[in-house]
Amino acid sequence: MREFRRDPIIGRWVIVSTERAVRPSEFLPPRREVNNQANCPFCPGNEQHTPPEITALRAPGSHSNGPGWHLRVVPNRYPALRVEGDVVASAEGIYDRLTGVGAHEVIIETDRHDADFCDLAEGRAVDVFRVFRDRIQDLKRDVRFEYILIFKNCGSAAGATLSHPHAQLIALPMVPIRIASELNGARRYHEFRERCVFCDIITWELQNGSRIVAENDDFVAVCPYASRFPFEVWVLPRRHHPAYEDIREGELARLAAIVQTVNRKLNQALEMPPYNYLLHNAPLKSPASERFHWHLEIIPRTSGVGGFEWGTGFYINPTPPEEAAQFLRDL
Amino acid sequence: MREFRRDPIIGRWVIVSTERAVRPSEFLPPRREVNNQANCPFCPGNEQHTPPEITALRAPGSHSNGPGWHLRVVPNRYPALRVEGDVVASAEGIYDRLTGVGAHEVIIETDRHDADFCDLAEGRAVDVFRVFRDRIQDLKRDVRFEYILIFKNCGSAAGATLSHPHAQLIALPMVPIRIASELNGARRYHEFRERCVFCDIITWELQNGSRIVAENDDFVAVCPYASRFPFEVWVLPRRHHPAYEDIREGELARLAAIVQTVNRKLNQALEMPPYNYLLHNAPLKSPASERFHWHLEIIPRTSGVGGFEWGTGFYINPTPPEEAAQFLRDL
Repeated sequence: MREFRRDPIIGRWVIVSTERAVRPSEFLPPRREVNNQANCPFCPGNEQHTPPEITALRAPGSHSNGPGWHLRVVPNRYPALRVEGDVVASAEGIYDRLTGVGAHEVIIETDRHDADFCDLAEGRAVDVFRVFRDRIQDLKRDVRFEYILIFKNCGSAAGATLSHPHAQLIALPMVPIRIASELNGARRYHEFRERCVFCDIITWELQNGSRIVAENDDFVAVCPYASRFPFEVWVLPRRHHPAYEDIREGELARLAAIVQTVNRKLNQALEMPPYNYLLHNAPLKSPASERFHWHLEIIPRTSGVGGFEWGTGFYINPTPPEEAAQFLRDL
Repeated sequence: MREFRRDPIIGRWVIVSTERAVRPSEFLPPRREVNNQANCPFCPGNEQHTPPEITALRAPGSHSNGPGWHLRVVPNRYPALRVEGDVVASAEGIYDRLTGVGAHEVIIETDRHDADFCDLAEGRAVDVFRVFRDRIQDLKRDVRFEYILIFKNCGSAAGATLSHPHAQLIALPMVPIRIASELNGARRYHEFRERCVFCDIITWELQNGSRIVAENDDFVAVCPYASRFPFEVWVLPRRHHPAYEDIREGELARLAAIVQTVNRKLNQALEMPPYNYLLHNAPLKSPASERFHWHLEIIPRTSGVGGFEWGTGFYINPTPPEEAAQFLRDL
């Protein structure tokens, strides 16, 4: 059993296991990535090692939960949350908790165990971003969910436990605190200037040019002005657009293309760094349409997150984003 | 040169280097801890490898910047900030920045290269926490500073680059965003209940008992209800007390004792885990005296911070804090 527990000071929700007796020794070996193709539960032929698939893109005539697919969505075998049940709030003494209801899915991006996202053929890369859209549209119909996180851990230093390329989706009955403060910040900016802060960033960055990594007709990739990490890159749609799931078909192709370009440039500059990306999307029920603007934040994990960074929300970045952007542009 | 840059959306300040041309290849090798006693700049006899000391506790007759000390405070050789100059705010297009003014000091806790904090003799452990107090009291006189962070990275997985026991201090011309949200949360709680949220947590935890790790006359150590990480431990003073630098002499001894106890228990349970701690203190100029309550957050780094944790402020903790506390209590 898992439950949501709220920090009584800052209001942050955390998913806490309440059942499994985990002995301290289980925490000892640093988490290692499994990179053995024969045992990989995400490889074709090993479909029985995942729960039954939610959806898959497969060759005509191939069967569910068998080989023949090139993209497969399955429930996480070790889900952080359970999809069954009601969202029930209760008090525990002075604290607040919620039942651990949510969805936790894995998007296996390709049948190719050793491919990186940038190695996929154009159509296959587009499929990944189209499936993100389709899964959000599907889960959005479930009234229990308020927010959907889509993220990727690539490389063990970035938190991946399996090296086969995959992204993850978590549907939550609340808006995560970090996204809530982004929404608040965007609202304050909009109240003051009557413009979307993300649109202003895009306009300024295109005019200034020094932090642009790549661009195409629909998207801009920039190293943000206040980058927390060396070579942090944000991909933003040029069109003001709060909810990712409303992306247009033509935009999907150009999104896949710019993310492949950024992925390839980062791999070349930093020699295949571990990385995370996180889709910052609007909440499902109140998309804050004038103010929010979905985007993808890509963070290469070139150095450990230091001692106090996540404790303070304070970061020290030794690489000027202008230099990082220039390195990446010039590749 | 470093400068502070503000994220235009959520208002988070980041320290960004603006000068050093760091080539991407410099980010490639994972940061390794230097654990060679002969080359250790923090070992006695190597004093010339640090900037001149700010203060030291040393044997009678020994000389500044020579051996004979058992605790030494020096400026960081690679400071994140510079102590000279005025805090000047300016615009860069649509963005805000501040000159990179601040202090960055290293507290070398002991002359013993291989000691952990819990190995120090009682009086020596107290000296560490007394020096924290003294450094805050000294730097507080500098009107440019709004906040002082004291933190420790122990082990390379926790961000340490040197294994010799040391803590760090950073004085900032602003309150970090994470602390600001803690202050806001404590204020909201106080407005609603007219009590300090931390005092309420202490009362409830002592009454409930299941998350208590250790206690003495002045301090309580608990695994917090909404722990983000397995075996996260907070040490809180029983006395309502916003500003660490007002700690009493007797409390210093009991603080050192409880932190040594927790340190020893964590080392035993998790076999010398890398860890961070962070002193959450009141802002220097407006200590929010009714509402805030200083405390020390200790985080063992048993597993990597996963993909989306610091991106969302959302955490998944596989170990119930009640179980972690029981393991630690029973040791």
